[in-house]
Amino acid sequence: MEKIYEDALLFDFYGELLTEKQRQIFEEVVLCDCSLGEVASEHGVSRQGVHDMVRRCGRLLNSYEEKLGLVQKFLLIKKKAERIRELSGDDEIRTLSDEILEEL
Amino acid sequence: MEKIYEDALLFDFYGELLTEKQRQIFEEVVLCDCSLGEVASEHGVSRQGVHDMVRRCGRLLNSYEEKLGLVQKFLLIKKKAERIRELSGDDEIRTLSDEILEEL
Repeated sequence: MEKIYEDALLFDFYGELLTEKQRQIFEEVVLCDCSLGEVASEHGVSRQGVHDMVRRCGRLLNSYEEKLGLVQKFLLIKKKAERIRELSGDDEIRTLSDEILEEL
Repeated sequence: MEKIYEDALLFDFYGELLTEKQRQIFEEVVLCDCSLGEVASEHGVSRQGVHDMVRRCGRLLNSYEEKLGLVQKFLLIKKKAERIRELSGDDEIRTLSDEILEEL
């Protein structure tokens, strides 16, 4: 899986367990691809501070996934729901599988 | 939803974020229905200590769900997968929905 997609999924699942400041900085640097310099000056911290916080957040998000494994679980479900969507000719089943996919 | 089922779901999803001792005590008291006295003497703590830890763990598990909402998401997916299971006459789709239900 592409690193940016993996980071986005981890952030989507576990981001609320970070502090608000951690969430903002991680989102700006990793998901919105802002430069360290921009984010540092916006938040009044050093570039090194931003860099360290992003690494720490990445480790935290990964440690939640190592403990809980919920991203992995949901990816498996997503794959199967997509396959149901492909296979079924029944409108209600297609709608249900779409709704499952929207949850994920 | 019955309290015991709700506690079991919360524990299943977020239990790994508790310490090992918290997990053991919560599991014994809440899920296995051991008495506070039994659990207290087994772990060498007071009944009040067991009682307080169980309440603290319950609050912690609920706070993870308030932040992440993954149990709620899972319950919605489960309902839809069960409905797909009921509706479909296609073996592959039934197998896929069974596999989704096994993940949940």
